[in-house]
Amino acid sequence: MARSNKPIQVSVVGGSSADDRTLALAESVGRLVGSRGGVIVCGGLGGVMEAASRGAKQSGGLTVGILPTYDASTGNPFLDIKIPSGMGHGRNLLVVASGDVVVAMPGSLGTQSEVAYALLLKRRVFGFDAWGHLQGVEVVSTIEELETRLMPIV
Amino acid sequence: MARSNKPIQVSVVGGSSADDRTLALAESVGRLVGSRGGVIVCGGLGGVMEAASRGAKQSGGLTVGILPTYDASTGNPFLDIKIPSGMGHGRNLLVVASGDVVVAMPGSLGTQSEVAYALLLKRRVFGFDAWGHLQGVEVVSTIEELETRLMPIV
Amino acid sequence: MARSNKPIQVSVVGGSSADDRTLALAESVGRLVGSRGGVIVCGGLGGVMEAASRGAKQSGGLTVGILPTYDASTGNPFLDIKIPSGMGHGRNLLVVASGDVVVAMPGSLGTQSEVAYALLLKRRVFGFDAWGHLQGVEVVSTIEELETRLMPIV
Amino acid sequence: MARSNKPIQVSVVGGSSADDRTLALAESVGRLVGSRGGVIVCGGLGGVMEAASRGAKQSGGLTVGILPTYDASTGNPFLDIKIPSGMGHGRNLLVVASGDVVVAMPGSLGTQSEVAYALLLKRRVFGFDAWGHLQGVEVVSTIEELETRLMPIV
Repeated sequence: MARSNKPIQVSVVGGSSADDRTLALAESVGRLVGSRGGVIVCGGLGGVMEAASRGAKQSGGLTVGILPTYDASTGNPFLDIKIPSGMGHGRNLLVVASGDVVVAMPGSLGTQSEVAYALLLKRRVFGFDAWGHLQGVEVVSTIEELETRLMPIV
Repeated sequence: MARSNKPIQVSVVGGSSADDRTLALAESVGRLVGSRGGVIVCGGLGGVMEAASRGAKQSGGLTVGILPTYDASTGNPFLDIKIPSGMGHGRNLLVVASGDVVVAMPGSLGTQSEVAYALLLKRRVFGFDAWGHLQGVEVVSTIEELETRLMPIV
Repeated sequence: MARSNKPIQVSVVGGSSADDRTLALAESVGRLVGSRGGVIVCGGLGGVMEAASRGAKQSGGLTVGILPTYDASTGNPFLDIKIPSGMGHGRNLLVVASGDVVVAMPGSLGTQSEVAYALLLKRRVFGFDAWGHLQGVEVVSTIEELETRLMPIV
Repeated sequence: MARSNKPIQVSVVGGSSADDRTLALAESVGRLVGSRGGVIVCGGLGGVMEAASRGAKQSGGLTVGILPTYDASTGNPFLDIKIPSGMGHGRNLLVVASGDVVVAMPGSLGTQSEVAYALLLKRRVFGFDAWGHLQGVEVVSTIEELETRLMPIV
């Protein structure tokens, strides 16, 4: 456990729609973080966000969704804590700022803004089969590899 | 429990410094919410925010602090989840937007912005010995009275 | 002219709908500021915001609207500069932060959040027949009185 | 002139420090936009932001700086309108949202977040000798080329 006995917060970012492999991986990331007592932070909607949240709940982890509107009911069903920000795309910055580390799955422009912001805020960023073209991103290709990298942190 | 079996989120707002009576009351509010399985959301710093967080942890509740800077270490020691927003005073809106209900303790201009925003977002606002001059605020004077009012919700 | 020869920025806040007297006064405020080479900053929509913008354009002033959505076309027709913030109610803080001084017309909860924020940021706040119950607001009742008060600033 | 006779707003993004060639080009972009009656919007600080602002003032254009803090005096000396947002890096989204088009000069992570956000908001993005690896960016290499591309818009 990092940060003075508090659970580590892992932000998971990626597409609100994604292929089956990516969704399965995002779920595994959530399960891994939850099994180690960590917290998943995400944008609270579907796709990668929902898969990571679902995984965390399967292993007893906590989940936080930072939503684009003021309506908490728009969150996916696997969120424990809802932050209905009303900030639209501006909430992307909050999602990555809230991570002790950031796991970036494949995604498009929203995810790209999140990876850039995460690096700008000096968060450690793991790109899961993605984002390797951005300097500073540490690419991993399997959940075992991510586990090994996260072990000293989570 | 409200909101589809999810814990209710109670935002507590008030001064970052406060007199002993107010701090004791804020701690009681936190303890009450925690004892019913609810979540305390606050601005994450000292005074009323810290007292409410401490109370919630005494009764096993969860605490969320939405911080003004990007530095999670600035939060009070009773926070489980930290949202380091980097938004300065702008995070006041996030704090109240994240509450299913808002409990407003005595405070000054920051708290006033939060009460106004809470009412604007149609959150139910309980003013604890305070804010009764603002239309829409339900004033309570004891923790028992607050408990009675919150009972159907939490 | 204040601030190193730059035009003074006067934020005008108030209801998005208002009675005829209030709208006429808001227009006068815009005209006054424009006639002295100042800039009107507002929330960019209708009511008091539109009236102040229209007034400023009548006297050759510049107008800035900080809009709640990302869609610049939602602004009133009297805006020169449009900041489509996408921040919803969160843009209220930006509106008052952008004023060297703030003129607050009658309004409801949104305006109340703006007055609280303006005082918090130590902006000088003139309440036009309004907001006198909030400590720190300087109440004026006529456009001449406002002119006298603004004269050393604008 | 685009947008119902209102001046077009061109957001210029890029590093807060930059090499001489980049600064000279940013100044040319500002001068070009100003000479056509447009408005330069930027992040209000130094480097590319200051160069573009200076260029716009040389040709009589208007300049808007959306600043990271609440302190308007932190802006560069070539700003007509100052929006002291207090939002830190979050203001990057406001800068690009405020552009009818965005010109992206070379820069690092902050600029990268801006390019991603600009494309997400479906702004047309011209990369000046930069950002060609991001799908959707139209790369230009000379000020004449940019002029030709902007001509139908500004």
